[in-house]
Amino acid sequence: MIIFLPHGRRQKPLKDETIFDAALKAGIEIQSLCGGKGLCGKCKVIIVEGKENISPPTEVEMKYLSREDLHEGFRLACQTRIRSEGIVKVEVPPESRLGRQKLLEKGFERKVKLKPAVHKLLLSLKPPTLRDVEPDAERLISELRERTGGRIELSYEVLTKLPDTLREKSWEITVTLWRGREVISVESGDKRKSLYGVAVDIGTTKLAVYLVDLRSGKIVSTASDMNPQIPFGEDVISRISFVMKDELNLGRLQAKIVEGINNLIVKACRRAGVELSEIYDMTVVGNTAMHHIFLGINPKYVSLSPYTAVVGSSLDVKARTLGININGGAYVHALPVIAGFVGADAVADIIATGINENREKSMLIDIGTNTEIVLCDGENLYACSCASGPAFEGAHITHGIRAVEGAIERVWIDPETLKPMYKTVGNVKPRGICGSAIVDIIAEMLKAGIIKSNGTFNTDAGTDRLRERNGKIEFVIAPKNETFTGRDIVVTQSDIREIQLAKAAIYTGASILLKHVGMNPSEIKKLYMAGAFTSILKVRRQ
Amino acid sequence: MIIFLPHGRRQKPLKDETIFDAALKAGIEIQSLCGGKGLCGKCKVIIVEGKENISPPTEVEMKYLSREDLHEGFRLACQTRIRSEGIVKVEVPPESRLGRQKLLEKGFERKVKLKPAVHKLLLSLKPPTLRDVEPDAERLISELRERTGGRIELSYEVLTKLPDTLREKSWEITVTLWRGREVISVESGDKRKSLYGVAVDIGTTKLAVYLVDLRSGKIVSTASDMNPQIPFGEDVISRISFVMKDELNLGRLQAKIVEGINNLIVKACRRAGVELSEIYDMTVVGNTAMHHIFLGINPKYVSLSPYTAVVGSSLDVKARTLGININGGAYVHALPVIAGFVGADAVADIIATGINENREKSMLIDIGTNTEIVLCDGENLYACSCASGPAFEGAHITHGIRAVEGAIERVWIDPETLKPMYKTVGNVKPRGICGSAIVDIIAEMLKAGIIKSNGTFNTDAGTDRLRERNGKIEFVIAPKNETFTGRDIVVTQSDIREIQLAKAAIYTGASILLKHVGMNPSEIKKLYMAGAFTSILKVRRQ
Repeated sequence: MIIFLPHGRRQKPLKDETIFDAALKAGIEIQSLCGGKGLCGKCKVIIVEGKENISPPTEVEMKYLSREDLHEGFRLACQTRIRSEGIVKVEVPPESRLGRQKLLEKGFERKVKLKPAVHKLLLSLKPPTLRDVEPDAERLISELRERTGGRIELSYEVLTKLPDTLREKSWEITVTLWRGREVISVESGDKRKSLYGVAVDIGTTKLAVYLVDLRSGKIVSTASDMNPQIPFGEDVISRISFVMKDELNLGRLQAKIVEGINNLIVKACRRAGVELSEIYDMTVVGNTAMHHIFLGINPKYVSLSPYTAVVGSSLDVKARTLGININGGAYVHALPVIAGFVGADAVADIIATGINENREKSMLIDIGTNTEIVLCDGENLYACSCASGPAFEGAHITHGIRAVEGAIERVWIDPETLKPMYKTVGNVKPRGICGSAIVDIIAEMLKAGIIKSNGTFNTDAGTDRLRERNGKIEFVIAPKNETFTGRDIVVTQSDIREIQLAKAAIYTGASILLKHVGMNPSEIKKLYMAGAFTSILKVRRQ
Repeated sequence: MIIFLPHGRRQKPLKDETIFDAALKAGIEIQSLCGGKGLCGKCKVIIVEGKENISPPTEVEMKYLSREDLHEGFRLACQTRIRSEGIVKVEVPPESRLGRQKLLEKGFERKVKLKPAVHKLLLSLKPPTLRDVEPDAERLISELRERTGGRIELSYEVLTKLPDTLREKSWEITVTLWRGREVISVESGDKRKSLYGVAVDIGTTKLAVYLVDLRSGKIVSTASDMNPQIPFGEDVISRISFVMKDELNLGRLQAKIVEGINNLIVKACRRAGVELSEIYDMTVVGNTAMHHIFLGINPKYVSLSPYTAVVGSSLDVKARTLGININGGAYVHALPVIAGFVGADAVADIIATGINENREKSMLIDIGTNTEIVLCDGENLYACSCASGPAFEGAHITHGIRAVEGAIERVWIDPETLKPMYKTVGNVKPRGICGSAIVDIIAEMLKAGIIKSNGTFNTDAGTDRLRERNGKIEFVIAPKNETFTGRDIVVTQSDIREIQLAKAAIYTGASILLKHVGMNPSEIKKLYMAGAFTSILKVRRQ
């Protein structure tokens, strides 16, 4: 029996089940970036009683927990397994409790004319008689030709459902047309009110699904998770290497991402009260490697000179061919990719900002584990990508958490006292630091002289917030008496190094593009930023 | 241990294995129409020793074997299971040994211009460089547009293989184009020499596969078997009833026929030394119910007034969607169906004979369990079908066998002595009667006064060949001293009834068509006959 504190909820675990899984079943969500795969070290819990009934610490725990932590009873919930039937009392400390995640504030949004690839028509067909035995399919096609004036095909999936559907409501049916030329779905009666699509963004680290009402253009629900391919490689290159190791690996990665997308679609549908069969279209973007792997196309030549993509144009593939569980006749539309390292995500950025139409001198940066940069010199567009690492997405940062309640999202450092001030999501006691605050912290520490321009701590800065722990220097943002967790929230040297790496990669990419077209940074009239945390970044003009 | 006589071959059977299966493993083929399903009663064997080691006679055996048979040790190989490890000596009597099947004599064959839906092109592409990073797919499409001048698409299946294939033989590849517009396959190097297709005929009772070299138009091998759906209903209507009983049954029947076709394709390929991946196209015909079931389309409305088909036009569906194992990008082309009870098989008959082009006053009869009849009145074509039963295909006839060596294929009866004379396939001692001979026998018996015009035996005919056995009258075609089997070969009253049923059904169909257009039988200038046995029918002008 596990007893979760402070909730007091009880759960009878299976033998060898992890505390993480048992908590999920008990309805207790424990903070985790990686979903229980031992990759993020965020699911800390304290074993209050019953240490003899659990598994010993794993190598993963040795990496994420200090000796002190272990001594105090801290364990990672995803690593700790129940070994016998006795009572285990588990405290979920404040920093590991999952608050309500901050909704992404609305960023820049262009007005676009709603023109979905699918639309519905209500038809009323004349039933056959002994004198008029035209087959069902031809009967439907004749009527559609009359209504639309164009050539119409029936999707094979439609044929298998057609006869019963036609007869269910006395030959009144709703058909869904794809691009005005292919019937991809038939339903009995008037079903014109439901017409949904999903937009899927396959990031190297994050996977996001947006459920859109295609009649209004409104996003009705969203769902996101870590990319389930992370255990097979954290970045694009290591994932391609994994594919090259064994010819079955491409299929494995594809199955993972398809499963991940299907799970998120189910979540988004549940939240909005929409059935999977009401989704008639899907669009997908991702960098070239993510795009290729999702489609089951080998991405290995993307990583080998001359770094060519296998396919550049947009693709329409039946969802069922890819294993995507939406309406049986629906297509998946993959946006075009630009080159081996500039993918469909960059294309989506360009479309979303419209910089291809404005033709202003502008730059677009889509920050992620792989960062896409597009530069417009007033005439042409130039694009590149850079491996910036997952730091801005909250991974690899000691006290990094997602933008949930209690996440520090902004930080200022008093130039005189060198004392940090901060604002948290929901204005409650802090639990950790999210991406936008990390950028603030480093900028403010530099301004205040707490770090040097090369990123190392300046131990002569003259503040007791800068201190040594286990031979390493760290800067205390929020001391334990202020925090929700009762433990100090700090920034370490390696946190700074992670951000330096990301910043340097992005800066290099941007500089090379500018140099290529002979532009100065000051000539850039507009800078578009994309990526989960960029909407709450502070802008400072030089 | 089973010892097969007269071969002397030994086989160690599994527990509860049938003698039929054990024989197959020992490489001994036992005559069977149904493939060991207990439907034809043709796999008779004699248990010479070891009766204590086998299962007792089943109900199926009670039906097909007389008390005398059982007493003499006769059993059906597919019904008899090995129960213990002792020795079982099994004699395979001559009538149950599988001779070399008589090849279908070439019938009527029109010259057709060879114009397959697929063709191959050898391409040599320029490899990409750092200055020319056009993606693989676009590189291929540009080259193809230049070569063919048309719009070209790549099949999704091709994309997943493209990058490695291009690089395997230094960017020299062979592409297979479907209808000149879709690349359905890519292979490295020059593979223009192999281009095959399969034509599949789904009969209610028989399933036949023809492997065709699409460069020469020649049939390179064939394979046929009983339709594996027979256990679920012998005729079209009982199979539709089965579909209507449970919503999973359509899928069950579809899986059976797809599996059956796949097995025959493998057989045909082995015989010709062709790989499955070298088959780039498949065409399929069948009556409307067989056509619909194969495509997974519910055929139930075919059997309900006003008897409409679900789809009439020809269809192209990817082979992999249907589960057909040929080249991964290949299409299956289903010929159009005419109506609920006149299917794609009738369309194939019309195309094969060309009666739609000649426009002569002619009739076409395609005899099978379901028989298709097409009438041309000199201008228009009229078609119908009739349920004629499987008698002409050798089923339901006491001594009916396939047209293998030793099958009686023609019969004459001496009008004076009333003694039958016969010719066997291969001119060896007779083993049984095949379809063409049954027609002869009944015609000759009628002429000779052995049967009356209503089909009953005329016991006053004055021949000792007409005799009573077990209270039933039968006519001996070949007495046991003449036969290969050492047993009399006879025709029974129920054999005659089966043929009467078939003949009456076909005659009725033909008469209704003639009446409909106001033609006399004598006005028919040409009669085309199709069906396995019709090529060796004797023609008698009235």
